[in-house]
Formats: sequence, C-alpha cells, structure tokens
Amino acid sequence: MQRMTPQNLRVPGPTPIPSDIVEAMTNPMINHRGPEFHALIDKATEQLKQVFMTKNDLLILTASGTGALEASLVNTLSPGDRVLSATAGSFGDRFTDMAEAYGADVKRLEFEWGGPIDPGAIRKVLQSEPKIKAVLVTHNETSTGVTHPMEEIAKVVKGEFDKLLLVDAVSSLGCIPLPVDAWGCDLVGTASQKGFMIPPGLAFISISERGWEAQQTAKMPRFYFDLAEARRFLKQGQTPFTPNLSALYGLSLALDKLLDEGLESVFGRHAGIGQLTRDGVRELGLELLVADESYASNTVTAVKMPESVDGKKFLRLMRTDHNVVLAGGQGKMSDDIFRIGHLGHVTENDINGVMAALKEVLPEVGFNP
Amino acid sequence: MQRMTPQNLRVPGPTPIPSDIVEAMTNPMINHRGPEFHALIDKATEQLKQVFMTKNDLLILTASGTGALEASLVNTLSPGDRVLSATAGSFGDRFTDMAEAYGADVKRLEFEWGGPIDPGAIRKVLQSEPKIKAVLVTHNETSTGVTHPMEEIAKVVKGEFDKLLLVDAVSSLGCIPLPVDAWGCDLVGTASQKGFMIPPGLAFISISERGWEAQQTAKMPRFYFDLAEARRFLKQGQTPFTPNLSALYGLSLALDKLLDEGLESVFGRHAGIGQLTRDGVRELGLELLVADESYASNTVTAVKMPESVDGKKFLRLMRTDHNVVLAGGQGKMSDDIFRIGHLGHVTENDINGVMAALKEVLPEVGFNP
Repeated sequence: MQRMTPQNLRVPGPTPIPSDIVEAMTNPMINHRGPEFHALIDKATEQLKQVFMTKNDLLILTASGTGALEASLVNTLSPGDRVLSATAGSFGDRFTDMAEAYGADVKRLEFEWGGPIDPGAIRKVLQSEPKIKAVLVTHNETSTGVTHPMEEIAKVVKGEFDKLLLVDAVSSLGCIPLPVDAWGCDLVGTASQKGFMIPPGLAFISISERGWEAQQTAKMPRFYFDLAEARRFLKQGQTPFTPNLSALYGLSLALDKLLDEGLESVFGRHAGIGQLTRDGVRELGLELLVADESYASNTVTAVKMPESVDGKKFLRLMRTDHNVVLAGGQGKMSDDIFRIGHLGHVTENDINGVMAALKEVLPEVGFNP
Repeated sequence: MQRMTPQNLRVPGPTPIPSDIVEAMTNPMINHRGPEFHALIDKATEQLKQVFMTKNDLLILTASGTGALEASLVNTLSPGDRVLSATAGSFGDRFTDMAEAYGADVKRLEFEWGGPIDPGAIRKVLQSEPKIKAVLVTHNETSTGVTHPMEEIAKVVKGEFDKLLLVDAVSSLGCIPLPVDAWGCDLVGTASQKGFMIPPGLAFISISERGWEAQQTAKMPRFYFDLAEARRFLKQGQTPFTPNLSALYGLSLALDKLLDEGLESVFGRHAGIGQLTRDGVRELGLELLVADESYASNTVTAVKMPESVDGKKFLRLMRTDHNVVLAGGQGKMSDDIFRIGHLGHVTENDINGVMAALKEVLPEVGFNP
C-alpha cells in the first residue's frame, strides 16, 4: 500500500493521531481472554469513567459511534415505546431514524439547522404526552457546529419529568464539558476518533442504574450490542467478542495524556481553538452558520458557503493546493456549508494554516469579501 | 502504557501481525469521505472478493466477526421465520442464540462437540420441514477444532432444497478453502484478526443476489448492520459510518500479500502447519479432540486435557515460563481441552516452540505419557 501523505486533516473526525499514540498502537497482539488484556481494559474503563465524569457502568464496544447509539436504544426500549427525539441536524436525524428502525413510536421534534434545541419545547411535549418514556438528544451536532444546551435540557428531562435521557456525545465527549452524573444523563455514547485522538473503531457508552432497570424489560432485540453481556464479561476483564486491540492500546495512552493534562485544561484548549477558528473565519468575511454564537461548537465550525462559490472546487483546491482537508455539509445542507473540525489533537498552528489557505483559495473560487 | 512483550501467541485469533503490516497501520488518518479513502476501500473490496472467491457484493463492517454474523441474520430474516441451525460447538451455539435473539423460530440441530455436522441429518430436517427458510452453519468450529464438510452441506442446502445458506467463516476464510460462489453460500461472514493477519476490529461479509432478494422483505430490525446502506455508500466509495481506518490500512497490505502468494499456497501452508501441530501433539502422547482426523481444522487444534492435569496451572506455566499463549476450552468444554491456534501469520518454528514448551511443562503438571 502506498503511504498516505500527512494532511492538515480538519474534518470533525477522524482526527490526526499524536505520534506517541501511533507508536502505542504498534504493540503486539495479546490474548483477549488473558491477564494482559484484563489489566488493559480495567485501566481504560476506569479512566474513561473519569473523562465521562461518571460512576455509572462504562462499556467499550468494537464499533463506530453509531453502534454505541444503537446500543443505547436497544438496551432500554421496546418496540412501540413512545420516545421524543429532538433534532436540529443530520446526526439528530440519524439518532431518530435509528429509534424508528427498531420500532419505537417516535415524536420527532425538529429545530432549525444551525440553531439550538429549545429545552422549553421539550418541556411542552413532555407535558402534553406523559406516555413518553425516553428523550433522545445530540449534545454536539456535528453537521451544523452547534452545541445544544444539554444542561438545561437535562434539567427538564430528568429534573422535571424524570424520563430516560439518551445522549449522542460522539463529537463532544472529552472536548466539551459533559458531566454525565451531575447532569443525570442515563446513556451516553461516544467514539474513539474524535476527542480521544485515536483512530475510529471503538465506541464508549455509559449506562446509569436507571438505564439498567430499563434494560430488564426492554424488548428491542440485541446481541452484538447487548450491554448486559458486555458488563458480565467486563467483570471477568473481558469483552463478549474479540475487541479492537490496537485502538485499545492507543486509548490507554490517550487517556493517560488527557487525565495528566486535566479535563479543565482540555476543555479550555478546545474553547480557545474554537474561538480562534470562528474569529479567523469572520475576519475573512465569511459567515458562521450558527445564528447565536453562544451555541457555537468548540469542536467543529460550520461556515456558510458564499453563494458565488463552487463548493466542490473550493474543497478540492484546499486539499490539492494546500493540503488542508475540510468537510462539506451533510444531509439537506450538503451544498450550503463547509465545516472545519478542531477537536482532539489540534493546535493553533493547524488553524492558522487553514486560514492562510482559505485566504488564497477563496479569491480563486470567486469570493472577494 | 507499558509495552506488551511479544509472545508466541497461539490462540485462534487475535493472531500476530507481520511487521510490515504493523508499519502500514501507522499511516496517518484521512477523510473517510475523501478520494484517498475511496481508492482504499475499492481496492480492499475487490481483493477481498478474490479471497472469498466470489462475484457477490462484499461489504466491510467496523465490528468483530459476530457483527458480520448478526448482519447475515437481520438482513435476510423476519421474526418468526423458521430456520435450521446446525451446531457442534460454542460458535455454532452463538450463531443459533443470535437468530433466537432476533425472533427467528430456530430448529437447533446439535452434533457432538469434536465431531462434524452431518449433511444427511440436515437433509432429513429439510425434508420434514419444508417451511424452513434458511440454514445456519459454522464452517470451522473454533471451539472444537473441527472443519465441517461445508461443500457437502452446501450441496444439500442449496442443491437439493435451495434454501438460504448463512455461513460463519470467521476462523476459516483465507486459511481453509471456501469457494463462496462455487458452493453457493449466500451470506458468508468473517473477521480481520484470523487469516487476514491484522488486528480485530473489521468484519467482512459477502451477500448473494438471493441474499439481496431476501433483504427486501426481511423485517428483523437493523441500522448499524444494514447491508443495503453499506452497499449504497460503497457505490460512492464510502461506508455509512466512520470506519476502522488503521485496520483498513493493514488489510490493504495483507490482501496484497495473500494474493501475491496465491490462495492455493496459503491454503497449503495452513494444511501443512495443521498437520505438523497434530503430529506434534500426538507424539507427546496427547489426544486430539476430533474423533475423525479428516475433519481436523487446519487453523486450530483442540487437545484433550489429560485428566490428571490442572488446566489453569498448565496454561499459566506455558505462558509465564515459556512465553507460549494457548487457549483453554469454551462453553461446556472449558476444562476439558486446550487449543492451539495456527492461522494467519504462523511458521513451523512457532509450532516447534509450542511443542518444546509442552514437552517441559506437561511433566511439571503431572502428565507423563
């Protein structure tokens, strides 16, 4: 295989991997039913709980983040259960579609893409539909660069109505504060290729006591994503199925690094990089998608594609001429925006490089602010 | 993370990784929606089809092998469908349990552990129950070291009754001949950490036209393992969800190596190593689990634990004193056997090392033939 050229990879995951983590991933294979693995998964699980800020059970799955979200649904719900899914982007839509695929009776509460989910609107639905069993929320909507007001949403869902709260934290956890226990989130799923600075292929999910109670009566079918089996094996230092060992080696070091730095510093670093990105974009005369910057995501920034610009050509020139890889839009916004990822292993230099490239490419595609 | 010591890792997966594949896996991350990924997945998919000996669609999933087997079920069956599951070991049992978890009406046809599945018994059931829609078979039963007579089974299932044939080929594909098209297997699932010489975390599944027809009416719920979505994305050079990139880098080189060597040579190498292992075991006065050696697996050998021997102590001494990692038994045979894996990147030297260690350890645990 021809070697890949290192790029200024500014999509919102996969993210570049620090060289010491790449090195950790070259560790030799071990028996996943042996003592070395037992030590590895126990350590990673305990450290992940610290990053999740939870005392809940925490399980490591060999899957993409979507697998963890599927696990959150099939372990707590039965076909026909009424659930409320709040969505304002393509990942919110995906979470909703997934619940429908497994037979949930979904109340889809949609908000404008680029805006936040309104906790007040959730309250109204929960007031009018007492039968709702669970609420599905995406903490950070990767497709629009919006961080939804999770704390306020949790206060409504848990504090006022005591419903099950299932959270997609794929592009927030480990980057943006999400104190799982303090906010009372029941199931929270995330993935390896975002804030954790390791490749895709592992997903992490926390589940509360309330979640386990729901599991006992939940009738959605499950096997690969059965969390009770995962917990049973974890007690013996194992996983039910052969786990992604290489990524686990990387994870172990990544967690050391994150916890050594301290979560407050990690969150602060992401906040600073997010601000730098938004300021840089605006200075170039571009417009953010997010209407109210107080909801702007510190892991991914969505920028309105100027009307005159051929988006495909723009993204291609950024990549071919400047080695900067940006993401296009998703779903109904495919052609309306481009996105800059700034999570995990990212420096101010990386963002400055993006801005320098934008400054050159934008005029080439007809945008002169 | 402390570095893992390289071991003579003789479990039936994960298997040791050749150093050039380890190196390939250190390639930098790329955009999984970009042109580099498109080239990567197209190449790997085409090469995988050659290893599967199929012109069917072939899809790469980010999961363990069990995920591919779950995909084979949920994409072709509906709750209540009558299926026949032939099992003679713990992986056959797992495939059966999985079908039941998703609501299939399963006829469980059990054979003695250590023996082969009898195609004649399958014929009898299919004759007496014309409503059976699909037959589930494990090609190589990892828990007992038996390769079931897949060609004969396929002749019955496909040739005589034209039922859907779903095959667990996790520990056979790429090691033991399984010509998917020639034998008419409809869905065949396998995983990365066995014959493919790369770490766990990817699963591969082929699906026939007949499989796609079944997919259109199959009502078992699916989202993460929806093969139609995987096919739709593959046509654009993508996967529906973020894929395990590192393992894909390794896979790309591993497939080059397997196809450069030639499948016949790869199969011959495994046959030779299998024979060497069985001969060595017998020379030490030990007894194979497999009753009829013509069914002995060329990827894993199950050996009866001598009655006088403390199995846990034996496995521990092999590991601590000789750096040889063997597998215990599984399921109801946990304490009755031990297993030697010899698939993927394995040499005669590795097996000779196992035999030398056995020769020293067996007397220490009270076995003197």
